Amino acid sequence: MSKPSHIFSPLAEQLEPEGAFVYLDLANEARRKGLDIISFGIGQPDFQPPRESIEAVKEALEKGNTRYISPLGLQELREMIARYVSQKYGVDVKPSEVAVTVGAKAALFMAISLLTRPGDDIIVQDPAFPTYECVVRYAGGRPVFVKLREENDFRLLHEDVDKALTSTRKPRGMIINSPHNPTGSVLEKSDVEGLLELAKRKNMYVISDEIYEDYVYEGKHYSFLSDPEWRDYVVYISGFSKTWGMTGFRIGYVVANEKVIKAMDVFATNMYSCPPAPLQFAAIKALELGIDWFKPKLQDYKRRRDMAWEELSKIPGVHVVKSRGAFYLFPNVQEALQRTGLKSVDELARQLLFEKGVVLLPGTAFPLWGGDGYMRLSYVLPEEKIREGLRRFREFIVEKGGVS
Amino acid sequence: MSKPSHIFSPLAEQLEPEGAFVYLDLANEARRKGLDIISFGIGQPDFQPPRESIEAVKEALEKGNTRYISPLGLQELREMIARYVSQKYGVDVKPSEVAVTVGAKAALFMAISLLTRPGDDIIVQDPAFPTYECVVRYAGGRPVFVKLREENDFRLLHEDVDKALTSTRKPRGMIINSPHNPTGSVLEKSDVEGLLELAKRKNMYVISDEIYEDYVYEGKHYSFLSDPEWRDYVVYISGFSKTWGMTGFRIGYVVANEKVIKAMDVFATNMYSCPPAPLQFAAIKALELGIDWFKPKLQDYKRRRDMAWEELSKIPGVHVVKSRGAFYLFPNVQEALQRTGLKSVDELARQLLFEKGVVLLPGTAFPLWGGDGYMRLSYVLPEEKIREGLRRFREFIVEKGGVS
Repeated sequence: MSKPSHIFSPLAEQLEPEGAFVYLDLANEARRKGLDIISFGIGQPDFQPPRESIEAVKEALEKGNTRYISPLGLQELREMIARYVSQKYGVDVKPSEVAVTVGAKAALFMAISLLTRPGDDIIVQDPAFPTYECVVRYAGGRPVFVKLREENDFRLLHEDVDKALTSTRKPRGMIINSPHNPTGSVLEKSDVEGLLELAKRKNMYVISDEIYEDYVYEGKHYSFLSDPEWRDYVVYISGFSKTWGMTGFRIGYVVANEKVIKAMDVFATNMYSCPPAPLQFAAIKALELGIDWFKPKLQDYKRRRDMAWEELSKIPGVHVVKSRGAFYLFPNVQEALQRTGLKSVDELARQLLFEKGVVLLPGTAFPLWGGDGYMRLSYVLPEEKIREGLRRFREFIVEKGGVS
Repeated sequence: MSKPSHIFSPLAEQLEPEGAFVYLDLANEARRKGLDIISFGIGQPDFQPPRESIEAVKEALEKGNTRYISPLGLQELREMIARYVSQKYGVDVKPSEVAVTVGAKAALFMAISLLTRPGDDIIVQDPAFPTYECVVRYAGGRPVFVKLREENDFRLLHEDVDKALTSTRKPRGMIINSPHNPTGSVLEKSDVEGLLELAKRKNMYVISDEIYEDYVYEGKHYSFLSDPEWRDYVVYISGFSKTWGMTGFRIGYVVANEKVIKAMDVFATNMYSCPPAPLQFAAIKALELGIDWFKPKLQDYKRRRDMAWEELSKIPGVHVVKSRGAFYLFPNVQEALQRTGLKSVDELARQLLFEKGVVLLPGTAFPLWGGDGYMRLSYVLPEEKIREGLRRFREFIVEKGGVS
């Protein structure tokens, strides 16, 4: 008989590791072998939080802000987020409609777990951040994948969602991420409106992961919160990790109707008591500084995106959409695979790593087949590193016989 | 038709708020009415973390430790915890058998969710910390309550567990908490051995919440980890909140076999990415300081316990076991209720609050009927406050006619 602490719940076994970690582990292996690694595999910006935010945490510690707080976070921060989001998207969010969470990840985990009933069908983009699928399955729901197509710049079209909702389905919700990881796509206003119209027609919730909302290089980000009926349909998720360089602080937030926020209060109580108290003072200070702090960083990332796109476009057999958002490009390498005889994006990723020390993630890490034939490139590196890394990528393809 | 973001999963609805919060909210209401509140309702120590730990966090922030780390926490901290726990309990824990979590609460949430399958019967003490029951139900398990009896100093007896496991049960695990919230009871070595013997006979896991392990005033704490076969049966949970005054930092930890830790790696990845990075440096520093830092605090809490016990014993109709651990006493007020004509511990708690400004939690907040007729008193206050609060409690009982 198996020993009791070696037997796991079938629900919990629906949770899977992120495919990206496999490659980050491989990169460490390659580094130990002496390779000079250039990693385009990392999903976090390369700048530090504002100086003032660091000072605010130090001051909070000195003042003894070391104790339990509300499961929904510091009241002052909830009030500031309500004001900030309201101004940003022209809506009227109340502090009681805001929850502060242990990163946007915990917000997603709670939102999906709360709103998904066993047997519910939930729309998930393919490719997408792997957590969506895992947590839907963990909650007993069934992910319904809708492929993002290159010819539409990887935008999720409401027509494609509608087609996926065949008569045997029990449609219940959509998990949408724009700007999008891993493709960098950004939904247009008309896309968002079309998806919301569909959600209303089918009575589906929209969990909208807008963590990359400030990384839009052309045009503007259109939030699912902009809909006047957001309280009935939308759970908006964002956080301080990407815009403010605070990935390790784990401060996310949710805007949703009060019932959802009250349910999250209970959920968080049972899951982790409260988000860590002192680090939230960094977030308060960030909102005091305002989005102007981020603007030079956005310009910097735009230059990197332009350069990475240009360099990628020079590689034989590689075709790449100039994505408008996040900090990812999603080059199509199908022709390069054919020409070089490499069997898969996985093989390409491994050989490129061990022969040239360059980390690109295969699109299949996100998490199914929608990303097959593609690689994710995260341009969070200094420009000279991007240039050198893509020089090596080109060299690799050429050496493998990729020139037609 | 209900709007889609207003409908919740029946599983998630198994999670409930902590009864204690109701009284903390009421206390705020009473405070606003101008009452001078003395609260025995709080479950956290009243001291700050070590000065050196605060400095360590500030230094970590200065050094840029603001980024994602492993879902299982800083490797250095995992190594230190492995050494610390090994020395403390004479076992041989490897760093790969340790997970750092967002407080002991997240450790419990993950451990229960991982090891409980739908339909499993799980032993839960009654009274107990309410999260155990909620998370068991959330995972699809069925809590089987075993009443802690005053005549046994509220210790969980293996004979009582055995009796609860009738032939219709599907025994799978026990969630045990010693030193115990809310009674302050501490299991004897023979209790722990008896429970482990039963666990082995019935092939049940033991999730052992030992967060109060350092708060033992007489005798010593005997850990479930002390069993040589712990890897097959025991998931040990503790953290830095109670011993080190870091409740708001949310740093807990788990010791379990490597399979459990690997499953927690995946679980944490999907639930919150990683525990916050900079605050873990406070924990590293705490373990460097060692348990000697805590000893004067333990002596201080022992004096408070002795005094609170003595003052409680003077109140007509109140009988109280001199509990050996945690920072709780659990007075029996049944006779006082009879004499005063108060209908319930809940009514006693409310009237005592609004008439005398004293917060005691009714035993029924933990979470069923095992605590009926009892109140939880947390002696985390300065001695003069304890004395004044219990003077008021006595006055209240006398005024209500509680003198025989």
